[in-house]
Amino acid sequence: MALIVQKYGGTSVGSTERIKNVARRVAKWKAQGHDVVVVVSAMSGETNRLIALAKDIQEYPDPRELDVVVSTGEQVTIGLLAMALKAIGLDARSYCGWQVKMTTDSAHTKARIQSIDDGAMRADLAEGRVVIVAGFQGVDEQGNITTLGRGGSDTSAVALAAALKADECQIYTDVDGVYTTDPRVVPEARRLKTITFEEMIEMASLGSKVLQIRSVEFAGKYKVRLRVLSSFEDEGEGTLITFEEDESMEKAVVAGIAFDRNEARINVKGVPDRPGIAYQILGPIADANIEVDMIIQNVGENGTTDFSFTVPRGEYQKTLDILREVQTHIGAAKLEGDDKVAKVSIVGVGMRSHCGVASTMFRTLAEEGINIQLITTSEIKVSVLIDEKYLELAVRVLHKAFGLDQAATV
Amino acid sequence: MALIVQKYGGTSVGSTERIKNVARRVAKWKAQGHDVVVVVSAMSGETNRLIALAKDIQEYPDPRELDVVVSTGEQVTIGLLAMALKAIGLDARSYCGWQVKMTTDSAHTKARIQSIDDGAMRADLAEGRVVIVAGFQGVDEQGNITTLGRGGSDTSAVALAAALKADECQIYTDVDGVYTTDPRVVPEARRLKTITFEEMIEMASLGSKVLQIRSVEFAGKYKVRLRVLSSFEDEGEGTLITFEEDESMEKAVVAGIAFDRNEARINVKGVPDRPGIAYQILGPIADANIEVDMIIQNVGENGTTDFSFTVPRGEYQKTLDILREVQTHIGAAKLEGDDKVAKVSIVGVGMRSHCGVASTMFRTLAEEGINIQLITTSEIKVSVLIDEKYLELAVRVLHKAFGLDQAATV
Repeated sequence: MALIVQKYGGTSVGSTERIKNVARRVAKWKAQGHDVVVVVSAMSGETNRLIALAKDIQEYPDPRELDVVVSTGEQVTIGLLAMALKAIGLDARSYCGWQVKMTTDSAHTKARIQSIDDGAMRADLAEGRVVIVAGFQGVDEQGNITTLGRGGSDTSAVALAAALKADECQIYTDVDGVYTTDPRVVPEARRLKTITFEEMIEMASLGSKVLQIRSVEFAGKYKVRLRVLSSFEDEGEGTLITFEEDESMEKAVVAGIAFDRNEARINVKGVPDRPGIAYQILGPIADANIEVDMIIQNVGENGTTDFSFTVPRGEYQKTLDILREVQTHIGAAKLEGDDKVAKVSIVGVGMRSHCGVASTMFRTLAEEGINIQLITTSEIKVSVLIDEKYLELAVRVLHKAFGLDQAATV
Repeated sequence: MALIVQKYGGTSVGSTERIKNVARRVAKWKAQGHDVVVVVSAMSGETNRLIALAKDIQEYPDPRELDVVVSTGEQVTIGLLAMALKAIGLDARSYCGWQVKMTTDSAHTKARIQSIDDGAMRADLAEGRVVIVAGFQGVDEQGNITTLGRGGSDTSAVALAAALKADECQIYTDVDGVYTTDPRVVPEARRLKTITFEEMIEMASLGSKVLQIRSVEFAGKYKVRLRVLSSFEDEGEGTLITFEEDESMEKAVVAGIAFDRNEARINVKGVPDRPGIAYQILGPIADANIEVDMIIQNVGENGTTDFSFTVPRGEYQKTLDILREVQTHIGAAKLEGDDKVAKVSIVGVGMRSHCGVASTMFRTLAEEGINIQLITTSEIKVSVLIDEKYLELAVRVLHKAFGLDQAATV
């Protein structure tokens, strides 16, 4: 007898047949005596269809009205799932974001959840009903419909689990858990039974996009027990995301290898080494809403410094254009760049207490003749930027070097 | 400077191009200094698509959840229209039914409006905004989404016009007004410049389905000035539906000829003529949710009576089956019927003060050798049931006999 919040993504509810499958899965949990709250996304393709309609009307759709339009995707799914449950004899009731007072700020298309009213849901659960809530959407203080941004349904699920103090929040997706790396690159990649929140955040932000990163942060903040599972397999425990490092557990030093192809490197060379120079370079780029990822500053020659950073590949040319305009003002000697680069990261909380993880990484890459262009490190990860053409090779050799191919990943 | 409520149906907003056209039309009214509130339906085909999804999940979709699903159709349109208005430089804001507290009873899929909160809308109008409201939908006291039933957007528009005390409620549709009869049957049919509410109600219920009948009743109750216009023509005044007979106006005796092919006749013959017999016959039919239209009871022979009525053609066989079961209990001598019949009606408030309208009708039909099977009359209409094969002929000769071909219909 537990209270479970389950979240099913767009692919899991992508057709009426799949919605019926979700209903059968929910029924199994109910049959075991659990209370179930289900959060669903829009049927796959629906959100894109709605956005296309909006863009056909207005090149940059008004954010408030875009939220009105796209939030209908999830609303359709909640109604259909409630019907599917009723069709197999379970009582169920659907709720839009505004109906459970999923209150957010007013930042349309990327709103943040502030509070939830659990009254109606608790009453339904007490009467044995399955509660179904539309993911991705909320309502602001003024009664305007808001959305949480792409992937926001994960965040909705975690927020509901936190508000209801659920025993577990299960994220059903089209993969059966979090892997040591992408199995398409390394066939030996294995599913992790557990991963810590910190590792998960690093893995997610580095490209293993199983869960929306904000939902993981949210789960960590409210200590929600989070599990990633496959909605297409009946068995399997998925990957449990824990919020505490279990000291007694034998933990692999490195949990996984993440990578990201969507990188372009910019070098600003020979910049006068004076206070505020980083801001002078990155300010105009931030103003243009370009997200900067890795940032490295190195000592150069004769009181100058070399400044490097990475941006999403699609923003490469735009970033160079912006910098050319301010180059004279900054006093930079030279602008360079490369948009054929990729980032590889090793992630693991075990690193904290083990020296030599970074050097193992560097040695392994050197042995394969892979040149490292940039390095950044945090407490639980080391990232390197390399030539894109060596990406698969790098991931494979690192996966092997850290014993991820065979180690019993707990 | 007037306050206008405009309603655009599914065909008028059937594509993004058409939504842009609606925006341009609204802009014209704004440019003339009017305040405009727009009510829209779902894009044509959308409601049917959503219902099909629901039926694919549950043969008889749960009414509460069906309302959750189908109400998304209008929600998409309001957002898109708000964008279209913003794209051409007008300020606009969209509202779902729940956002303007379009409060209804809880009769899902056929709810009735009880009240509207005009606060937010008045504030928007005062700031020069176009207000856009989703038709067809409301919210009950418990916060459940409700819908008003097919065609309910007309009712939404009239209810909003009443709540806002609008100067006029304009219903834009794919016809440019109410005609003396169906132009497909009588090419000489002409558009009426005005029609009274009572005539409109009779015309609508008799098959001239320009407006949902409930919206007309609503308009009559709250004295809303209602106008039917074409959304595809830029000029034209449409047809104004007036709630008072203007005595000073020279009024045609008959406003129009309505007809309905969806009729089947049932005769129950030789029924003992005792109190309660009509209920014994019609009760089981009403219980089966079959709508009975014309009802006639005639004196028969030897203390028996003959009872006739019409039902929608699709319910003909079911009705006969029901009656066969109760025939012995009722003591009816004979059951007969015909599902190849049609109803023709002449409608006009002028009838009240003119004798001989009915006899002109009967004579005209007799001259063409058309046999009348049943007759019913009200103050402003006379309906006859005839063999279906004579329908077009009957409508044509009646249209001519009452001078509708050439009279200046005011």
